[in-house]
Amino acid sequence: MAASASISKTVYLGAFAHCVTLTDLEICEKGAIGVDEEGVIRFVERAVGIDVVKEKWDEWREANVVEVRDGFFFPGFVDTHTHAPQHPNTGLFGTTTLLDWLEKYTFPLESSFSNLQKAQRIYSNFVSRTLSHGTTTCAYYATNHVPATNLLADICLARGQRALVGRVCMNTLSPAYYRDSSIETAVRDSRACIDHVRSIDPHGTIVKPIITPRFAPSCTAPCLSALGALAKETNAHIQTHISENTSEIALVAKLFPDAKSYTDVYDTAALLTPRTILAHAVHLSKEERRTIRERDAKISHCPASNTALTSGCCPVRELLDEGLTVGLGTDVSGGFSPSILEQVRQAIWVSRFVAMRSPCAAAPNNAAKLSSSEALYLATRGGAAVVGLEDRIGAFDVGKEFDAQMIRFGGVPEDGELRGLFEEAAGPIDVFGWESMGEKVEKWVYSGDDRNCVAVWVRGRLVHRSGRFEN
Amino acid sequence: MAASASISKTVYLGAFAHCVTLTDLEICEKGAIGVDEEGVIRFVERAVGIDVVKEKWDEWREANVVEVRDGFFFPGFVDTHTHAPQHPNTGLFGTTTLLDWLEKYTFPLESSFSNLQKAQRIYSNFVSRTLSHGTTTCAYYATNHVPATNLLADICLARGQRALVGRVCMNTLSPAYYRDSSIETAVRDSRACIDHVRSIDPHGTIVKPIITPRFAPSCTAPCLSALGALAKETNAHIQTHISENTSEIALVAKLFPDAKSYTDVYDTAALLTPRTILAHAVHLSKEERRTIRERDAKISHCPASNTALTSGCCPVRELLDEGLTVGLGTDVSGGFSPSILEQVRQAIWVSRFVAMRSPCAAAPNNAAKLSSSEALYLATRGGAAVVGLEDRIGAFDVGKEFDAQMIRFGGVPEDGELRGLFEEAAGPIDVFGWESMGEKVEKWVYSGDDRNCVAVWVRGRLVHRSGRFEN
Repeated sequence: MAASASISKTVYLGAFAHCVTLTDLEICEKGAIGVDEEGVIRFVERAVGIDVVKEKWDEWREANVVEVRDGFFFPGFVDTHTHAPQHPNTGLFGTTTLLDWLEKYTFPLESSFSNLQKAQRIYSNFVSRTLSHGTTTCAYYATNHVPATNLLADICLARGQRALVGRVCMNTLSPAYYRDSSIETAVRDSRACIDHVRSIDPHGTIVKPIITPRFAPSCTAPCLSALGALAKETNAHIQTHISENTSEIALVAKLFPDAKSYTDVYDTAALLTPRTILAHAVHLSKEERRTIRERDAKISHCPASNTALTSGCCPVRELLDEGLTVGLGTDVSGGFSPSILEQVRQAIWVSRFVAMRSPCAAAPNNAAKLSSSEALYLATRGGAAVVGLEDRIGAFDVGKEFDAQMIRFGGVPEDGELRGLFEEAAGPIDVFGWESMGEKVEKWVYSGDDRNCVAVWVRGRLVHRSGRFEN
Repeated sequence: MAASASISKTVYLGAFAHCVTLTDLEICEKGAIGVDEEGVIRFVERAVGIDVVKEKWDEWREANVVEVRDGFFFPGFVDTHTHAPQHPNTGLFGTTTLLDWLEKYTFPLESSFSNLQKAQRIYSNFVSRTLSHGTTTCAYYATNHVPATNLLADICLARGQRALVGRVCMNTLSPAYYRDSSIETAVRDSRACIDHVRSIDPHGTIVKPIITPRFAPSCTAPCLSALGALAKETNAHIQTHISENTSEIALVAKLFPDAKSYTDVYDTAALLTPRTILAHAVHLSKEERRTIRERDAKISHCPASNTALTSGCCPVRELLDEGLTVGLGTDVSGGFSPSILEQVRQAIWVSRFVAMRSPCAAAPNNAAKLSSSEALYLATRGGAAVVGLEDRIGAFDVGKEFDAQMIRFGGVPEDGELRGLFEEAAGPIDVFGWESMGEKVEKWVYSGDDRNCVAVWVRGRLVHRSGRFEN
């Protein structure tokens, strides 16, 4: 599928939900969303049928109609931080924490991406997986291999998934078998990947390059500065990790004795820009957060990973209250799931643990809790702003492009039994028939999975469908 | 299916895993488990094929063989605490905490179980659901309605799921529309349910009664004492809630001003016995835990519920170190999932949050963390001990009964693509082929779901199968 493949005008009919603001989730039970040949939303009608739509909008008389029954349309998810090559290690972390986890699980697997056939298999599988979970935009770490990184961009473009694809740079404190031999090669190879991605998608419609210093401990200060200069020269996005784990923070303090803070290391290297994605941000000081806000850099909150690796509980409410821009990241394979819906839940759990952090017997601080609407906002509009696409995706607004997932439920028959050879395919949610649409959305948030995501579109193009997609 | 239905001698062939101790998960890559006509395990062989088995065990020459490929057998899960009538509310709790959640979501739904047709639909659906997640034994709260409670026991017996089924008692602080009118009716109706369950399964092979005072705030002291006396007279199990939420604890202190503690309320009423299941136990003092241990009462840890309702983080490691018996409970619909595998994960997350409870910037207390092996122990052997079946279920030991689930994975093809109309049915785990069996078990723990549970047996009887069960 090419980025410019033409599509037909289509009206998406039936219920939809999307986030209007952080706290306002709009649920429309009878909607009609008109999407043109470029994948752009031209109208959003509420409380009307297709007849009224076709009467009102004459030029849509011959449009395709895709109708959702027993479900709703929802904006595609944005995964603001994940590591595609680590996908085979999903679920493997045992009782490790960040630094020993890198040594034991991560570096050996990533280094094997010199094998392009292996890269093809894993990257194809991971892009299929993330699409099947409704992820329409993804910020990917690849490895330090130019051919495999370029292949990941090729696959995303071919499958039609929006992606930021980054070649990982590290010139120190990495194993000898997996390291940039010099700053010059780190910059040269990063540039090669930027050039490739821009050659296959010149307008960055679907795929874009992203400069990717792994994190401060694995890049020397001159290397970080060289990458900062490259970002300025190429106007590319930047992604890295920050303040994930207390041992890592201590290590950064030791490695960069002149820096005022972890944040200052990146700021000094000109890596804090409005196009920068900082993953984790668990233990930042108020002053560091102020610097990040002043630079308009963005935060990727990765709750599953932070919990699995016992990194800490990111105080998301404080970040939001301070005006930082926050999205969600799966951080596979520190995170144990490629699903942003799972991150929505995990973000809610982490916020509850922040609320309960006060001594055991005290009442929870309910102000810290994220609601499901707020977590869904982070997964869509929040994520869109993190990857610099807030004007194009994240909600069903006229003028935005149609990145969406169709969510469906199975109904419970009168006798209550689960039935049939493929009963599992109907999904994990039991809908009895008396639930409001708002309650169905809540059930999806807390119990849904990829079985409920029956079709996925990017810019109006169907990029994933399951057996339950009937149109 | 009757409790006494005859089955054929069967050899379960292939990999299996089970918990030997809290910390020792045995993984056997080439096993053979012989199960006789009564569902009892007669031999467990390691590292042999079927030919060797048949040669060694002459009387098994004609036995059925059920072989697992791309997966392993695992003991059935034990759910030590759940509310069957609340199943339709799964995922609905918003930002409520315990006491307002009861008023808003729970009481209105439970009271509707005066309608037997509705009870039939919901209970059939929930038993099907829990079986499909590999739950072979379940301690159920029903409602205060005798006919609907008896129906739940009938359904469990018919479906072959081991169950403790309890009629809920509450004679105060419940809505007028859903309350026992007197202590006498609470005892009479509880007795009616005990009698019914014992009439349909006289030896308690599959279903047993359990006396169920909802929790201290909804029963007066004389009501609790009457139920304690009934338990002594009938030698029945007991289940209730304890120390779930700080507001609830304050309420109990106010309602029972003479009691030394929440635990003392139950102890005074003779409700703390070796056959008692206490759900939650989040905020117990050391002294309360000592009393519970001295009475040999059991704990049901319900991590998903405690997190969802912001009840608190149960310090499971401390409970285990102190010698308490702990199992896992889904606590639907305070809990948002009917899956014990999900509770395994949630128990791990809660233990990590306990480890991270110390001030934000400090290193985590890793001793508090549960490993996946430990969490699986709670889900099987731990749970078996909580429901008084430690001699009969929970592991693949000679002399125990065969309660088991067959776990299978999908493989990733060479080109990495997900394929086919029913690709979802292959499940959420990607196995590339180079993983050890131990790594596959880890992937299942962190990423698996009901799609991986392709068949379920109780006492050697097949009680659930999916389309991927090929035998």
